[in-house]
Amino acid sequence: MPGFFNVQPPDEALQTLLGQLDYRVGPEYVPASAALGRVLRDDVSATEDLPTFARSTMDGYSVRSADTFGATEGMPAFMEVVGAVPMGTAPTVSLSPGEAATAFTGGMLAGNADAVVMVENTQVVGDSSIEILRPVAPGENVAQPGEDVSAGDAILLSGHVVRPQDIGGLLALGMTKIRVARRPRVAIVSTGDELVPPGETPGPGRIRDINSYTISALVEHAGGVPERFGLIRDDLALQQEAAQKGLAESDMLIFSAGSSVSSRDLTAEVIGSLGSPGILTHGISFKPGKPTIVALVDGKPVFGLPGNPVSAAVVFDMLIRPAIYWIAGCAEPPSLPTVTAILASDIPSLSGRQDVVQVRLERKGDNLMAEPVFGGSGLIFTLVQADGAIMVPLDRGGMYAGEQVLVRLY
Amino acid sequence: MPGFFNVQPPDEALQTLLGQLDYRVGPEYVPASAALGRVLRDDVSATEDLPTFARSTMDGYSVRSADTFGATEGMPAFMEVVGAVPMGTAPTVSLSPGEAATAFTGGMLAGNADAVVMVENTQVVGDSSIEILRPVAPGENVAQPGEDVSAGDAILLSGHVVRPQDIGGLLALGMTKIRVARRPRVAIVSTGDELVPPGETPGPGRIRDINSYTISALVEHAGGVPERFGLIRDDLALQQEAAQKGLAESDMLIFSAGSSVSSRDLTAEVIGSLGSPGILTHGISFKPGKPTIVALVDGKPVFGLPGNPVSAAVVFDMLIRPAIYWIAGCAEPPSLPTVTAILASDIPSLSGRQDVVQVRLERKGDNLMAEPVFGGSGLIFTLVQADGAIMVPLDRGGMYAGEQVLVRLY
Repeated sequence: MPGFFNVQPPDEALQTLLGQLDYRVGPEYVPASAALGRVLRDDVSATEDLPTFARSTMDGYSVRSADTFGATEGMPAFMEVVGAVPMGTAPTVSLSPGEAATAFTGGMLAGNADAVVMVENTQVVGDSSIEILRPVAPGENVAQPGEDVSAGDAILLSGHVVRPQDIGGLLALGMTKIRVARRPRVAIVSTGDELVPPGETPGPGRIRDINSYTISALVEHAGGVPERFGLIRDDLALQQEAAQKGLAESDMLIFSAGSSVSSRDLTAEVIGSLGSPGILTHGISFKPGKPTIVALVDGKPVFGLPGNPVSAAVVFDMLIRPAIYWIAGCAEPPSLPTVTAILASDIPSLSGRQDVVQVRLERKGDNLMAEPVFGGSGLIFTLVQADGAIMVPLDRGGMYAGEQVLVRLY
Repeated sequence: MPGFFNVQPPDEALQTLLGQLDYRVGPEYVPASAALGRVLRDDVSATEDLPTFARSTMDGYSVRSADTFGATEGMPAFMEVVGAVPMGTAPTVSLSPGEAATAFTGGMLAGNADAVVMVENTQVVGDSSIEILRPVAPGENVAQPGEDVSAGDAILLSGHVVRPQDIGGLLALGMTKIRVARRPRVAIVSTGDELVPPGETPGPGRIRDINSYTISALVEHAGGVPERFGLIRDDLALQQEAAQKGLAESDMLIFSAGSSVSSRDLTAEVIGSLGSPGILTHGISFKPGKPTIVALVDGKPVFGLPGNPVSAAVVFDMLIRPAIYWIAGCAEPPSLPTVTAILASDIPSLSGRQDVVQVRLERKGDNLMAEPVFGGSGLIFTLVQADGAIMVPLDRGGMYAGEQVLVRLY
């Protein structure tokens, strides 16, 4: 099965896959406090009003607002302080006309009070009396019940990726357990006669397997659980066995091909033999990453990644990261960090193909400069030296020094 | 100890702290494959050349380049194919003039060969003979030993945060264990008479503690290990005890104050009593987050965070995240994701103070609009509803609808 067929731009390849990808990992319950980065599997609505009580937003005095009308510094309203409502307690005092009670930020108001006067707008004039120097409107300096959120309000939707503040919102409502997607299990099969495990010293013509480890780290970073299913030599039966096992025991299979064309052809043959509908895209019109395979087997996504490490990392970002989030139930993965910079040198490109070019960032005076790091896509240190990458669009014959570029940061 | 003293802008407060913060967490050895996000504690140099052997970068034939000089489609160079060098093996053939050997991408060259002709530039003319249609220069289509990296090259510096490709680079060199900073342990003490644990139903005037959990998630996200040292009521002796224990057993202490001014004053008193040099900054000139305390006690950083959840999260990003990376040995924390958007409504502000304003993002046609989410900083759902935040600079009296803004995404 040599050569490429059904070559697509990366966006189209992703849409082709997602359009047919109904598979979702199952749900599980986790403590909300440990849910950072997990994908919600329920729409969540508020179960109660927050705050649950009218809460002072200032330190000062709770009052009947009508008693303060017309108060000025020149003609303050005189009030008797009949008590206090300490933090975390219900009021034991109730106000009659002309009375006030000490209030704390976050605390309750005295009975009959409907507003709070900031301490800065008062003056102590005796053991238990104050002057109020500015009027307050009803509700002033008070957070009303339900002002933060009302019972029944939709607060988070299924598919949302939980952030620190969401944990706060959930716990504020007493939701200590939530239903999220199980972390997608991603099987990684590394292939190629030239590979040895990284702990070994390679013999002549051999290199250490690094792709299965960089891919594992990328999977982890995308919220998945990487599982390595071996380092398999270029043998059809052995590779089929590893692929079938990996696919059966996981939610997604990533097949990392060897670097030779024959190894890539073998990868295509193995993936093509796994089941239906099989290969959707074989060949992606961008550099580096052309020899990528996207397939769907028994409902699960299968990827054949080019053997060279730069391509593998770039293709991962474009296709596999979104697919991991997708099967967890999230259609919009969290954004990756970017920065705007000025291109330091020209980049030649081929029109009709997207290029991803690695760059190093350097601050020169007020400008952040992006210097392209060229180098064969088989060279891992091209990526190690890079601070990020820029995309040369499909319809551009290249890019010129001085242009503003968006750098996807590593 | 009421009121604020030594009020600083956030950047200045951070620099004041870091300028005096020599404390670093200790190192530990971890497998390189499990080092994602960890801070390197050694400068790392390449221990060998990569590739270790002259490696073909194409599928084709290894040749003596001199034999191909002058070859054209009209007058090809005729060559005898005397063997192949399979992937992962040393060559068993050596070329005499007029001879070629099959070569694979990533494989070795035959003995005496100094270049590779791409298969696309050849034509099979017999069982073991080919025509070469284009000449190759010495070294063409060959990655030379040391081309990716040379023994002795500096590849990663101490303080670098390990990325997926760095794992690849380290393993390519056989460095399976590396020395990184131990994850900083961050003690979190939550205080306030109004707080109950999130699993309980709050009585009148009480609310659930959420800050210690949102702060825990933020610590985790910054590479630290959060450890909660209890929910302490507003009592000087109890708080001092918790703070001392937290500080002794950790690398950093975060004290989350209650929402009332008296609780914040108590926090200041507790932090001020812990040791020297003590409080460096008391009060930060930005909203929300003014009542922040930055201190240094026995060499370790101590933070007093405002009780309201929005302030706590914003201050964390500005001061505590950089400090966690700093004590791990990293001066430049990884970038957080941002996006450029157009401000949808005016934002009033006070000149002379930085404001952080939460925004929701909405796509309108081709534009990404940032709609400010106003709301008291005590309202956690202000943050839950937000997609990010923008900074209104110190010297601006506000910002206007239609302006381009940089949104820090959550």
